[in-house]
Amino acid sequence: MKRMTDEKSLIQKIERFFETRQVKGVSAPPGDDASLWVPRSGYETILTCDWFLEGSHFLREKHPADAVGWKCLARAVSDVAAMGGEPRCFLLSLALPVSLTGQWMSGFLKGLRRASWKLGCELAGGDTTNRDQVLISVTVIGEVRRGRAILRSGARPGDFVYVSGTLGEADLGLEQLRNKSNKRTSMNGALRKHLYPEPRLELGQWLARNSLASAMMDVSDGVSTDLPRICEASGVGAKIEIDALPLSRLTNRRKAQELALHGGDEYELLFTVKKKDAERVPGKFRGLPLTRIGELTRGNKIVVVENGASRTLAPGGWDPFREATKR
Amino acid sequence: MKRMTDEKSLIQKIERFFETRQVKGVSAPPGDDASLWVPRSGYETILTCDWFLEGSHFLREKHPADAVGWKCLARAVSDVAAMGGEPRCFLLSLALPVSLTGQWMSGFLKGLRRASWKLGCELAGGDTTNRDQVLISVTVIGEVRRGRAILRSGARPGDFVYVSGTLGEADLGLEQLRNKSNKRTSMNGALRKHLYPEPRLELGQWLARNSLASAMMDVSDGVSTDLPRICEASGVGAKIEIDALPLSRLTNRRKAQELALHGGDEYELLFTVKKKDAERVPGKFRGLPLTRIGELTRGNKIVVVENGASRTLAPGGWDPFREATKR
Repeated sequence: MKRMTDEKSLIQKIERFFETRQVKGVSAPPGDDASLWVPRSGYETILTCDWFLEGSHFLREKHPADAVGWKCLARAVSDVAAMGGEPRCFLLSLALPVSLTGQWMSGFLKGLRRASWKLGCELAGGDTTNRDQVLISVTVIGEVRRGRAILRSGARPGDFVYVSGTLGEADLGLEQLRNKSNKRTSMNGALRKHLYPEPRLELGQWLARNSLASAMMDVSDGVSTDLPRICEASGVGAKIEIDALPLSRLTNRRKAQELALHGGDEYELLFTVKKKDAERVPGKFRGLPLTRIGELTRGNKIVVVENGASRTLAPGGWDPFREATKR
Repeated sequence: MKRMTDEKSLIQKIERFFETRQVKGVSAPPGDDASLWVPRSGYETILTCDWFLEGSHFLREKHPADAVGWKCLARAVSDVAAMGGEPRCFLLSLALPVSLTGQWMSGFLKGLRRASWKLGCELAGGDTTNRDQVLISVTVIGEVRRGRAILRSGARPGDFVYVSGTLGEADLGLEQLRNKSNKRTSMNGALRKHLYPEPRLELGQWLARNSLASAMMDVSDGVSTDLPRICEASGVGAKIEIDALPLSRLTNRRKAQELALHGGDEYELLFTVKKKDAERVPGKFRGLPLTRIGELTRGNKIVVVENGASRTLAPGGWDPFREATKR
């Protein structure tokens, strides 16, 4: 497969994959200085960007190229889901070595395109350059009806805390991937969740449309790191029941509990609901379990209840700067 | 100065610099999953992103931190200027070593804030992570009245070609910076243009408001690389008069001509005007020279005329992938 040795042919390769001449709502041709986006009236625009860096967020020798493509977009789209919004288009900042502009890049673009189609989020532009490692930054543009976005700051004491899906499997998948000797490993639920996470767009939009969630975010760094963010933004504390956590069945109970509290990279939705609205939250939403894991309290303490005893929940999720200083 | 060792305090440091709680048109508090932007009715949204990477786009030991901050935003805003738009807000993706989160980062944020104030483009959000080198990707969101954006594709044979300011000084400034032994070097016009480029926002908006330019872009990679982009998008050729180029007086004539044709990193505007509108283009716009350097032709050839003889203009500007394969 041909390696691209100038920026123009690289951009043309990206355009061929995406047929960017037909992007809905985008009125500038690709390759112009910037993209022109026509916002819908009555909507607010959601803006979010996410790093996805070789060595920090993925390992080139372990992660298949198409999973890198899928995940870099999916995790940025997850921030739109966490607001109850709809993704519209994205900008791709891509830096990579010339040696990867052939087969690796094609695999990457296939995964990215699959995510783009599945998530309804079209390529609107970007920037490419040469670098010795693969560097990706994705900016996603979404929309939500004016005043309907669900923020982190709307929770009140007494609200119930919910989470979608099961927790901890993405970290389990990463562990499996690290221990495998090559890329061709059998795909199970945990590995799939690590490599090809699915942003909970439909759930987020349903919660926003029905004004059901008082606060919401996605579990990107682990419940023990992310729940305090909702609590701080809303000025509340929380009490989590460890027996209520939706655990993975792919490992033993103790490990599954640890992973459910501290495992990151999940992209499940963590949301709060007023007690009076709790009966409107189904046990499953279109097949996806919704689990009440605790409730919010006055003050600012966050505790876990296990066998009737409470202990403080210490953040154990991933923080790139904490990790760096530990080394 | 304190070094930041977790992501939260890093984000708080950025917020303190920018007082992001007061961003006009942005309705989500900083630190939420994404930013909420309220577009103005009757306007289209301009979206653009730009890499600014240590080692590729700047040298940490040569470029002052505040120039890195200024320039990473200014060059992305320049793409908005090149469409005739107004910048509104930006997202900052920043990766850096823990060791730079003290003094270096403060300098960086000061330069970034100065650009933000000067250019009317406020910080709306972003993503931070740890990395052994400084990696920056800036996404700028701008606006332009619906249908008024100036694209690269609107030029026609017979249109005149104009450029703002003088050409080639930014590259001259880079050369000066490389040859200096430390960061404290006397500031002249060339060095200033390299370190603190000023996007031509007012000129771009004036040309758009008055429907004067048939096509426009900014000179980021050099006239010899950028003019062919307008020509290709518009399906035209061009004839440039070498004696018409607005040269720098800071070097000898021959070198100044080379730099004017091939020097990148300029952020001057390159635009085309229909012959019948040419009398409406002033020699200076608010002190900034506007120079007619040639005209567009049928076909697809791009030639330079010197002493009555024509030669083909070969792209000599910067291409990150071409540079990489040369090594």
